[in-house]
Order: sequence, then C-alpha cells, then structure tokens
Amino acid sequence: MTSRTLIADLAHLPEGPVRVAGWVDTVRDQKKVQFIVLRDESGAAQLVNPAVREGDEGDPTITEAISGLTNGTFISVEGELKHDERVKLGGLEVKIGDLEVVAPALDSPIAEDSSIDKRLDWRFLDLRRPEQNLVFRVQTTFLHALRTWWVEHGFIEIHTPKLMASASESRAELFEVEYFETKAYLAQSPQFFKQMAQPAGFGKVFEVAPAFRADPSFTSRHATEFISIDAEISWIDSHEDVMRMHEELLVAALTAVKEKHGAEIEAAFGVEVTVPTTPFPRIPLAEAKEIVAGRGYTVPRADADMDPEGERQIAAYVKEQFGHEFVFLTDYASSIRPFYHMRHEADAGLTNSYDLIFNGVEISTGAQREHRVELLEEQAREKGLDPEELGFYLDFFRYGVPPHGGFGMGLSRVIMLLLQQPSIREVTYLFRGPNRLQP
Amino acid sequence: MTSRTLIADLAHLPEGPVRVAGWVDTVRDQKKVQFIVLRDESGAAQLVNPAVREGDEGDPTITEAISGLTNGTFISVEGELKHDERVKLGGLEVKIGDLEVVAPALDSPIAEDSSIDKRLDWRFLDLRRPEQNLVFRVQTTFLHALRTWWVEHGFIEIHTPKLMASASESRAELFEVEYFETKAYLAQSPQFFKQMAQPAGFGKVFEVAPAFRADPSFTSRHATEFISIDAEISWIDSHEDVMRMHEELLVAALTAVKEKHGAEIEAAFGVEVTVPTTPFPRIPLAEAKEIVAGRGYTVPRADADMDPEGERQIAAYVKEQFGHEFVFLTDYASSIRPFYHMRHEADAGLTNSYDLIFNGVEISTGAQREHRVELLEEQAREKGLDPEELGFYLDFFRYGVPPHGGFGMGLSRVIMLLLQQPSIREVTYLFRGPNRLQP
Repeated sequence: MTSRTLIADLAHLPEGPVRVAGWVDTVRDQKKVQFIVLRDESGAAQLVNPAVREGDEGDPTITEAISGLTNGTFISVEGELKHDERVKLGGLEVKIGDLEVVAPALDSPIAEDSSIDKRLDWRFLDLRRPEQNLVFRVQTTFLHALRTWWVEHGFIEIHTPKLMASASESRAELFEVEYFETKAYLAQSPQFFKQMAQPAGFGKVFEVAPAFRADPSFTSRHATEFISIDAEISWIDSHEDVMRMHEELLVAALTAVKEKHGAEIEAAFGVEVTVPTTPFPRIPLAEAKEIVAGRGYTVPRADADMDPEGERQIAAYVKEQFGHEFVFLTDYASSIRPFYHMRHEADAGLTNSYDLIFNGVEISTGAQREHRVELLEEQAREKGLDPEELGFYLDFFRYGVPPHGGFGMGLSRVIMLLLQQPSIREVTYLFRGPNRLQP
Repeated sequence: MTSRTLIADLAHLPEGPVRVAGWVDTVRDQKKVQFIVLRDESGAAQLVNPAVREGDEGDPTITEAISGLTNGTFISVEGELKHDERVKLGGLEVKIGDLEVVAPALDSPIAEDSSIDKRLDWRFLDLRRPEQNLVFRVQTTFLHALRTWWVEHGFIEIHTPKLMASASESRAELFEVEYFETKAYLAQSPQFFKQMAQPAGFGKVFEVAPAFRADPSFTSRHATEFISIDAEISWIDSHEDVMRMHEELLVAALTAVKEKHGAEIEAAFGVEVTVPTTPFPRIPLAEAKEIVAGRGYTVPRADADMDPEGERQIAAYVKEQFGHEFVFLTDYASSIRPFYHMRHEADAGLTNSYDLIFNGVEISTGAQREHRVELLEEQAREKGLDPEELGFYLDFFRYGVPPHGGFGMGLSRVIMLLLQQPSIREVTYLFRGPNRLQP
C-alpha cells in the first residue's frame, strides 16, 4: 500500500517529510507562490510551492504542473509538513517536493447551487462534498452500533431472499422479474421470511438489506429501493417488548454517533445529536388523534390512520411536553394494519402494534405477530387475501411457533431526520425512484 | 419480555424455580414418569413430570397435556431446576410445575434422512437442527468480525443499488425487471458502484449485500441470489495491497469464529477451525498450471483459465507444501478477466488480479482496477463492449480518480468450505436456484 498520510492525521505528526494524496479542491496560482487546497476522505490541507517562472532559476516542472491542474484532479504529493498557526486551514501546510498527477479531471458539471436532480446525475462528484462524506460515515457508525448491540444480545443475522414466488405485503407496488420460465417478485420487506426464523427456533434475528416497492410517489421520504433494518424476537408478551428492544437499539446507535461524530455533525449541519432517554413516550393512536385535534388539527382521513401533518403535530406536542424527539404511537386499528398483526384479546378492533415517530416523521412499524394459525388465516381472509396463496407462510405456524414480534425501520429516513436533511435523496448513496434508475 | 431462561444458561444457575420455553424434541411417556426433551436456540434439556394416571391422587391435567404433545410443539414451562450428574443430557433436569402449550405442531414432513430438496421445501423445520442453528451463528460471528475490522480501519459502509439501468458484468445471466414504463436489471455484483466510491473520495468502502445471477447451473456452488462480500480501497500500488487486506480480514474473522464456536464446530461437524498464517501463499496462475500438470492433471480448457479440479489440485499441493488452506492464484491472463482489471505495465497479456482458493474451491476474485480512462475504454472495446452503453461508468474516471482495487467474495461458499458442508444449500437461509423460488 502506498504509504500516504491521511490529512486528518497531519495535525498530530512532527514536522518533516510526508506523502499526502487526494483531489484538488482549489488552486491559487500566484506569481511568486502557488497554493493547492488538497482534499481526501478525512479533510483538507494547504500545499504550497514557490513558483519557478520563466527567467527564474530552478526547475519549472512542478510550477507548470500546478498551473495546469484542474479542480478535482487526483494527485499524490511528497513534501515537508510545517505547523504554522497563521495558516487558517488547520494550522499547517505541506511544502511540495514532488507532485504526481494521478488522474486529471474534466471540469465539474455541478456547482454548489445545482438542483438536487442535477447533483444526483453526478452523484459521485456530489459525494465529494465533506458533508456528504460525513453522512455516510455517520451511517456506518449507526449501523455498526446496531449490529454490535444485536450480536452482544445473542441475535442471529439472517439474509432473507429478495426473489420471491409471491408478494410479501400486497399485490400492489410489486416489481415483477423474469425468472427463467416463470415470474418472480422482488421482496417488499423481509416480513414473512424473518418470521420464518421463529418456527425455525432462531430466537432473535436481525437483517439489514434492500427492499423494493414499485411506489410511484415522489415525496422526500419514498424510494423504490431502500435499506430496511429488521429485527424479530421470540417469546414476547406484547409489542411492549419489541418497543423496549427498539429504544435500547436507538440509544446504543445514537450514543455511538454522538461520541464519534457529534462535533462534526454540529459543525456541518448545525445539529446537536441527542441521545434519547428511555422509555420513549408511548401514546395510543386514538389518544394521539385527540391531542392533535386539541391543537386544532383534524386529520383529514376517512380511516383511523394518522397523516404526515398529524405525525408532525404529535411530535411537536411530545417535544413540548416531554422534550423528546421520539414517540411510539401504539394500538393502531386492525382495519389499517396488515393481517399478521396480533389483535387485542379484549378488543379485536385494535392491534398490538406501533409506529415510531422521530422528529415528526414515521421511521418504523413494529408489532406482535399473530402466531395462532386459525386466527391468522381468518384475519387474512377478512382482509380479502387468499389463504391458498399464503399457504407457504401459514405453514410456518402449523408445526409449532413461539409468540413473537419485531419491527422494520427505514435506514435513510432515520439518517435524514438525524441530520435534518430535506430528503432521503441526500442520504442515499444512489437514490432509486420512479424516474431515477441512473447512474 | 417473558422472563425465560435460555437452556444453555441452566448449567450455571442455582437449583430452584426457572421458566424455560422452546419446542418439544421428544416425549417419553412412561407409566410412572414422563420426560420431555425441550430444545431452544441455545440447547436441549430434560423436563420431568411424575405421571398422575387414572386412579392416582392429584391433578392429571399436566400428565394429559404431556401425553398429547406432538414433537415440534412450542411450550413454556415453569418448574424446579435440579442438577443431577446422572442425567446424561447436561447433568440437569427441570421438574415441571406448570406447562403451557403455546402452539401445537403437525407431524414433521421431514426426517433425518430426507433428501436435500425435501428439506429445502421445509427449510424452517430443517433449520431447527442444532447443526443448522450453528451454521447461522457462525455466519453471524464471521460477518461481524469482518465489519468490525473494516470499521476499525476507517472503511465506510455503502449500499449500492440492486436495480440498475444496464448490466454490471455481462449481458448474459441478467435478470430483467418491469420498472414502471421501462426495464431495469438486477445487479450481478456491486462492481461499478463500489468503484464509484473511489472518484467520490470515500477512500475505503465495504458492502455485504445480495447479488443476482440468472445462472442456469445446478452445481453445489452456484445460486441465482447470493450474498456478496465486497471491499474496495484507494491508493493501492497493485493487487498485492488488496490481497494483504483480504488475508488480514480472514484472519480476524476466523479468529473470532474459532474463539466463539471452535469447540461446537468440532463437535457438530468434526472440523477444526484453523486460523491461517499470513502471508497466504501466492502463486501466479501460469505457475499453478505447471504445478498441477506436474501432478499429472492437465486442465482441459482451451483458454488460460483454471477449472475446479485444477483448483482442488493446487490446493492439495499448497496444503502439502505449506500446510495452508488458502492460496492466492495471481496474474490471470487478460483474455479471461473483465475489461476493468488493470494489466501489467510490462505485459498487457497479464492482469493485476487474483482468485482466492479456500480448501480447493474459489471463493473470491480481486484485482487492481484500470483507472486511466483511455486504457479502460480501449479494454472495453477490445472485449466487444460498447463504450456508449458504459458511459455512466466511464464518466467515473473522467473527473479524477485514485488508483484502486478490491475484491468480491461469496459468503455461502466461505461458510460451506469452513464447515466442510457438501453444498451452499446447507448454509443458505433460503436457497434460490433455477428451480427453487419457494418457500
């Protein structure tokens, strides 16, 4: 491996020879002296070269190379590190000894003020912005903290197939695949197959993987392909046990993010990462709707569900009342929940389920699942589903199964809300939407 | 959460009241006393109940419930833990105080000697076997050790899209998706998009995610959907830097597996996990073919490539000569490598690439990538590819890019070879093949 020093590490090094490598952020080509701001994945530093112009003594090769540099060009530089408080950028500079142009760059087709669509066309250049780099380092830390929590708590990681013979959630919003002599469908969620781990006796499982929805919407929160964070645990008494796992996970992940990136996030986005206290507030949905109505907002829906404005309103209420960024809305009506959600023993109109709202937006749905096969079949029928077609899934419950529940959570939504970004497009490596399949 | 004790934890508990829950492995319903072997994700234990038969004093409810139990039924039991060396199964038993049948089970349609196809039809029951459970715990530990190594070494986790507008590797073996008014294709590998992280300035990236190949083969090593382990790093001098990362990763992962599961793996599979020494042996492919020929095997191929028997032979040679289970075969001919592999400066007929062989089977391909766009375009054209169609990919190299390389490795193959299983079907949660889309 070429022994380059990461720019972030220069501050801790003694003065002397170093090798740095990255891309040219800017060049200031003055008569007597040339400056390059060099950027790598860890930061930016100033490189300096006394210019050797026509008529000057010395070799003009490096001077001419610098004059010819375009922004974005990748270069590798050997030089002398000098700490100098007068240098605004990090209090240090590197005097160039040798400079190699590794890959020259055409002029960037995007600028600071380019539209999001144009930036997505050139996503690999857009990702060079330090804030974008930070987004993905935050995401890395967030996911690793989740997985570490799961592993330390005895969970098994599973990889459910994304190619299915039938729908996992509904016939709508389903992508169809040509599969040899037949058709397959892309998994809309790992729901059925993560539940399968329960009769399989796996106990506690997790998965972080893509899911696919042929959703024609163009909102800031929807994508046709997204990363779904899923967990499913056995021997629960109710959805309360799922919520308890869920909040512990988020505390672990946000603690890790705050420790590792808190200062950077504040500098880049003006956002202070808050580690939430537990338990998170829990409000039954019916009560939440009354609270929201009391604030003057009537949810304009014929069914029992919330809407995005209602979610913002209840989040604002929770923030005011409890100073909390999270709230579990619980006990959704059976009419607006999938057939596999368990219903209350005393009131079949309500389910053992929840949505988790973070900074005003739904990021997750969780529930206890119905594991009694007669009830499950009845509930499927009631929703107009064909138990025949669900046969493979219903079989999971015919050979013994523990009570269980879990949640699915959208990675991009969490990161968007954590960093207060306007759209999941800003926090997705390569966004996929109805009109967006490239690059 | 219902406060159950994992069966594996009973050994360390004092005698007294406990609650255990799991599925019925077997029932021995004797006249005077009844035994249940109960299994959960952590192990098996014997439960005991003095039978209350007709005419006996006492409540016969539990006795009758036990007599009615079918294998596989999930039950929850409160009882008294007693340590007793005479009990073969773990030296302990639980005297049943109360027993709840949580979910009864139909008779299992599979048995120990069922065919692999029948077992895959009933995968959720097949996965109840303790060896199957171990496979997925090993996999969890393996992956977590890889990710921990990456995170500790400053890698960024990426999630490349699986829906693409064009092929990522070749037009063959491509799954086509109906995508609104157009067509999409399932990613055959994250190759192009993990490389995109390089001009994006991410430095070092990793991804563990599904990949899809419409491969009609029915071998023990191929699937239409598989988990691909990918890494890509910048500022390398050659594929040697990629191999060095690769072997360090495998040492970290196998160390973790050996520590956590070594004894269990030996007991279940008769396999001793070996932590490999570094550096792994490296043999240029041309030399490997000579060695294999010297052993009396001539690779029956018209091109310069190895074949599976050749891989077994060279692995046997390496095992004999160096006592090593791994070998890097290096410097494959350009004619049998994709256009994006960098070629030797001095001999364009050879590439800066390798295959990694583990216990005689190829588990991974790695390479330095060609980052000089003119050469890349020329190599694509030479392979009969249309640079127009590759435009979005070639663009990644026109705006500055560091030298880079990486590898892709099949998760199931590694686990299959580590545990010496006959097929990836045995180590895949739900296998997908040309004839296998269910459950």
